[in-house]
Amino acid sequence: MPTRNPLVITPISGLPLVKQGDDLAGILWEGLDKNGISLKDEDILVIAQKVVSKAEGRLVNLQEITPSEKANQLALVSGKDARYVELVLRESAELLRIRPGLLICQHRNGFVCANAGIDHSNVSTSNIASDDSSDGGWYLLLPENADQSAARLQQGLMIRSNQHIGVLITDSHGRAWRNGTVGISIGTSDVPELVNRIGDRDLFGYELKATIIAAADQLAAAAALVMGEAEEGIPAVHVRGFPYPLRQSSISEVIRPKEKDLFR
Amino acid sequence: MPTRNPLVITPISGLPLVKQGDDLAGILWEGLDKNGISLKDEDILVIAQKVVSKAEGRLVNLQEITPSEKANQLALVSGKDARYVELVLRESAELLRIRPGLLICQHRNGFVCANAGIDHSNVSTSNIASDDSSDGGWYLLLPENADQSAARLQQGLMIRSNQHIGVLITDSHGRAWRNGTVGISIGTSDVPELVNRIGDRDLFGYELKATIIAAADQLAAAAALVMGEAEEGIPAVHVRGFPYPLRQSSISEVIRPKEKDLFR
Repeated sequence: MPTRNPLVITPISGLPLVKQGDDLAGILWEGLDKNGISLKDEDILVIAQKVVSKAEGRLVNLQEITPSEKANQLALVSGKDARYVELVLRESAELLRIRPGLLICQHRNGFVCANAGIDHSNVSTSNIASDDSSDGGWYLLLPENADQSAARLQQGLMIRSNQHIGVLITDSHGRAWRNGTVGISIGTSDVPELVNRIGDRDLFGYELKATIIAAADQLAAAAALVMGEAEEGIPAVHVRGFPYPLRQSSISEVIRPKEKDLFR
Repeated sequence: MPTRNPLVITPISGLPLVKQGDDLAGILWEGLDKNGISLKDEDILVIAQKVVSKAEGRLVNLQEITPSEKANQLALVSGKDARYVELVLRESAELLRIRPGLLICQHRNGFVCANAGIDHSNVSTSNIASDDSSDGGWYLLLPENADQSAARLQQGLMIRSNQHIGVLITDSHGRAWRNGTVGISIGTSDVPELVNRIGDRDLFGYELKATIIAAADQLAAAAALVMGEAEEGIPAVHVRGFPYPLRQSSISEVIRPKEKDLFR
């Protein structure tokens, strides 16, 4: 049975802008302190992909990109810059759908999302708005391997706190069938992606079938509410009261194998 | 900008078992009191579909059902009881996929889910396990119209509390591409399904494009973490700190129109 405590998600306010090479664990540690939060065993930090990617130097300028022939062709169909399409293809394992303005891909790391998660907004290297196309424009790729990013951040925070915490890295994705984006996990260190309730019995003794809970995705959605979207002031939140024990996990748990997916 | 307060989701523990005709708003009101929670303006109650359906008498026994010819045919493909398939068809606007053990439908109320959300577990009318097939078995349908159910519960709680609160009714659904279920909204009263961030500017002045947040679904996922799955002890949770203003809304906001859906 999960614990029945309140779930409390607290914004880590006042974090500085993050740039390539920054010690993000150290920044988060100071941010926790400024917000009066002391880490305890089983606490979780949920961190938006954007700051992780920035710290890891995943910023690319389209000027550096030479599109392939395939990218040129798909640029015609999608109406997007061929260099941008090239970036998307490099970050993707497979292209699922293409429509004007939209490429739905399976990212190299397994999950399905729009445009391989490559984002334009908020990625300037200076504090000055620079949206003219003369410089090609800056784009931010997802972390190379967000599970590993999460593990490094967890390590940096556990050394400082001496507490066993989990770290979840999240993005906001669209979905099939439903409008609007939701926060989802793209990488974890010790936050269980799935919790398997098969075999539990309900109040009347019926055996529950096939109840596998996407626990990390649910936490990512909860965290996204507190992070918001429109600015970067809150790229990380602190979680207390997550109802399942921390354990080794990986984003690969949540990826449905292609042959079992009815909607590819 | 959304408010930057902690999001606190508290289980309403110790609720009695709910049966047809019960005054669910009254039961929730007493449950809040027992848990020491006083409702405030902008608070939200998230309520699991199961207790709403039970109070509304949406329990059906397969003995009462005569399958149509179509249900008999689909029973052969899906390997499910033809009477159960008949129930699923009656509750569905459209059948999207059928595989052994699985029917993916668009429910009458618009959302896509497995088996039209019809559930077997936990629906006995007594407290005694009764899973033998001689009685056909009891199945619980979703509320007839969960937006209206939410509005009635909201009304019942607002009259008692004299505070403007929101009510969200949730279920747990599977998804395309990703393993595991997540809590999602099936009906709302004043909890915004979508929050439109189009036109907001980020820190560098870039205009954010197409950022529409599925706010109610994110809250449903958060609530599902606190509710758990394996028993019915926590069918409702109290939310404080939801970052968006309450407003009139409807599940219809979140349903992607068929012609805009790339994954039907």
